[in-house]
Amino acid sequence: MATNRQKLNYMVQYREQLDWGFAALADQTRRGILEHLGAGDASISELAEMFRMTLTGMKKHIQVLESAQLVTTHKAGRVRYCSLGPRRLDAETAWIENYRQMLEMRLDRLGDFLEQTKGQMS
Amino acid sequence: MATNRQKLNYMVQYREQLDWGFAALADQTRRGILEHLGAGDASISELAEMFRMTLTGMKKHIQVLESAQLVTTHKAGRVRYCSLGPRRLDAETAWIENYRQMLEMRLDRLGDFLEQTKGQMS
Repeated sequence: MATNRQKLNYMVQYREQLDWGFAALADQTRRGILEHLGAGDASISELAEMFRMTLTGMKKHIQVLESAQLVTTHKAGRVRYCSLGPRRLDAETAWIENYRQMLEMRLDRLGDFLEQTKGQMS
Repeated sequence: MATNRQKLNYMVQYREQLDWGFAALADQTRRGILEHLGAGDASISELAEMFRMTLTGMKKHIQVLESAQLVTTHKAGRVRYCSLGPRRLDAETAWIENYRQMLEMRLDRLGDFLEQTKGQMS
């Protein structure tokens, strides 16, 4: 059975994963890089050229994506290649899905309230 | 029919919405505020107390959430109340869903490739 400390560690990890994940997605160039890597690996200099950016600028974006485990890199000779990382954005999907369910429940409650008010007024 | 300029405007708006939306979600306090407002409206000072934060700190978080249209505020007397905004995170859901579908297609392609390789080796 998980101890309280293990549960706490898990919660902290989950929160940090969401922080890093959403932050990584909050930039159109980084979303573009992920979409592009979906079609196949690319070197950092290829990506820099494609997104009309300096090598230094692209390296920073790749670091953010690596921190969120959305991208992994490997070196072949003098060239560093980027691939999509192992994460499927499960935590992000789950959080947004819960939020949307909560919004729907609120709308249902509002609907019930309006229905009751109508009943009392007629 | 939409002109090219209209289409471009729509794309820019969509990108900016994703930038603001994901950035707003990239902080555990802001996610906590959204979860809390799901149960009902709250004043900024109530939220500051609940999240053990200064009023100034909480105001900044609320501004970020307002910019992303995830929270709206209204004043009643001297108190400013926060409610959940109109956005259902549709754009964010769609982006993540597309990304996950792309990952699955990649896995399928990899599976096909391995199957073919196995066929050639046997």
